[in-house]
Amino acid sequence: MPSHPIDVLTVGNAIVDVIAHTDDDFLARQKLHKGAMQLIDETRAEELFAIMGPATIVSGGSGANTAVGVASLGFRAAFIGKVRDDELGRLYAHDLHAVGVDYAVSPAADGPATARSFILVTPDGERTMNTYLGASQGLGPGDLDPHTLRAARIVYLEGYLWDPPEAKKALRTAATIAQEAGNRVALTLSDPFCVDRYRAEFLELIRRGKVDILFANIHELKSLYETGDEGAAIAALREEGIVGVVTRSADGALVVTREETKAVAAHPITQLVDTTGAGDLFAAGFLGGLANQFDMVNCARLGAVAAAEVIQHIGARPQVSLRDLARQAALLS
Amino acid sequence: MPSHPIDVLTVGNAIVDVIAHTDDDFLARQKLHKGAMQLIDETRAEELFAIMGPATIVSGGSGANTAVGVASLGFRAAFIGKVRDDELGRLYAHDLHAVGVDYAVSPAADGPATARSFILVTPDGERTMNTYLGASQGLGPGDLDPHTLRAARIVYLEGYLWDPPEAKKALRTAATIAQEAGNRVALTLSDPFCVDRYRAEFLELIRRGKVDILFANIHELKSLYETGDEGAAIAALREEGIVGVVTRSADGALVVTREETKAVAAHPITQLVDTTGAGDLFAAGFLGGLANQFDMVNCARLGAVAAAEVIQHIGARPQVSLRDLARQAALLS
Repeated sequence: MPSHPIDVLTVGNAIVDVIAHTDDDFLARQKLHKGAMQLIDETRAEELFAIMGPATIVSGGSGANTAVGVASLGFRAAFIGKVRDDELGRLYAHDLHAVGVDYAVSPAADGPATARSFILVTPDGERTMNTYLGASQGLGPGDLDPHTLRAARIVYLEGYLWDPPEAKKALRTAATIAQEAGNRVALTLSDPFCVDRYRAEFLELIRRGKVDILFANIHELKSLYETGDEGAAIAALREEGIVGVVTRSADGALVVTREETKAVAAHPITQLVDTTGAGDLFAAGFLGGLANQFDMVNCARLGAVAAAEVIQHIGARPQVSLRDLARQAALLS
Repeated sequence: MPSHPIDVLTVGNAIVDVIAHTDDDFLARQKLHKGAMQLIDETRAEELFAIMGPATIVSGGSGANTAVGVASLGFRAAFIGKVRDDELGRLYAHDLHAVGVDYAVSPAADGPATARSFILVTPDGERTMNTYLGASQGLGPGDLDPHTLRAARIVYLEGYLWDPPEAKKALRTAATIAQEAGNRVALTLSDPFCVDRYRAEFLELIRRGKVDILFANIHELKSLYETGDEGAAIAALREEGIVGVVTRSADGALVVTREETKAVAAHPITQLVDTTGAGDLFAAGFLGGLANQFDMVNCARLGAVAAAEVIQHIGARPQVSLRDLARQAALLS
């Protein structure tokens, strides 16, 4: 066991966010499903970029956002994901190192450019994502460092990573190595349409004991169990016998185990600006707490504090120290 | 005369802003002069980037910010400046086109990368800029379209453009073409250290009648006249017999002509976040008004509204319609 264990290691698509403001009419004209993530090819990426508004570029990617949140809370975080050795790829690695996330995956020397997601934010703060996976699809089992995987108390896998075939192999390997070392594996369902694409695989993974902690928002959970009924979805989750964490936007979160369901309120905010990263940061707080033996309710509270910060500005990475915010909320000393 | 004249054409360095939060200790350790713009080479750019915090990337460049402000006010704007045909260069052109700025300068096919400024924002909202000029230095007289220059009611030149030698030639040509067509030329002094570098040239340009409107903040004006006394600097400006516009942060602005000095208050703000672009946007409002026959006081009020918007968020480009804000302030119908 290394002298400095990692609290949370996340594996995900390494994506730069290209964020622009838009309105509902634009989404309708472009036939975009509001609030969802849609995969796009290079041609569509060019097309969409040409007609969207002025952009703000910040590093993103669901799993990486979570790692940054863990680091911002003062816990030890690592990230595994693939960029190209281009301008945006260098920005991406810089942004991880700058907040102290352990990131050592070699960038691709050729092939497609660093992944980007064109994120359209409507006046209600909702984000609609159009992702060109580019270099992030190149992540494979060879990019995993077993030493790092064994050193992580929790390994967190992004559902979105099921899309690139090589990455999926890497995920399965990562989960196996982590569990064999006695560590826990967490999975986020990522997006209702992502669940649609991989429902059977996700359920198999859960039921074969490969997932210890499952994150889902309520839409993803309903999609997983193919029900429109919230209560039925939560009851089905309870039956899995794992730790289920269900986020419900302004209605807070539920921690669902076989024994009980605990509700935790959302952390108060002043103004909702951009929901991008809300789920990622909730997971950061929850997992950071869990890796440090917090009880489930305080884990969820830590998640709520982290999520509240990130939805009050553009971009999915915290702009202030989450540790300071958690201290103010009396969750960390 | 074309059927759709341009209100304001700006000429400037085409620079992408790479913005990070920092603190005063960092500036002190790096020997950076708070609030100023410093030119850096590629080696220093790499070095500084490696140690700065997570970055937000948005298009910037003083003159281009002004053009975007003019367009956001609903006036016709054009920009002349040079990028490389790289990822950031494409972002740059996109961001201009997305807000309706006329921008047709061909990107460089080789040579240094698109210019970038590493902007460090301290908790007081002050920005300290470290600029790698890259491709923007390639702007030359060949990039000027005389037709566009003649179509612009006002041509606005950025003092920073005196740094690249070819660009300086382009500026002089642009000013001559504009004035020969009966249009006005405006100049911004850009930065006190920039004034230090080119004081004699700026004064000669003003005194040879090449500048009709001069923009300066109070520090730049004192540097121009090499005095520590505000009153003396303003008296010297008055003697030039041109329109002088002096910005003084929260103390508002002065419009100085030979006949009189008029003071206009700053527009109220809720929270100062990042002063980057304050002067650029003030110029946008002032010049947009002037090109449309507003009186000087209303020109300055329009400038104050535009500046107030941009200092309340990260980045030097407006995030909402300045025309809407100007309407709310009863300055536009």
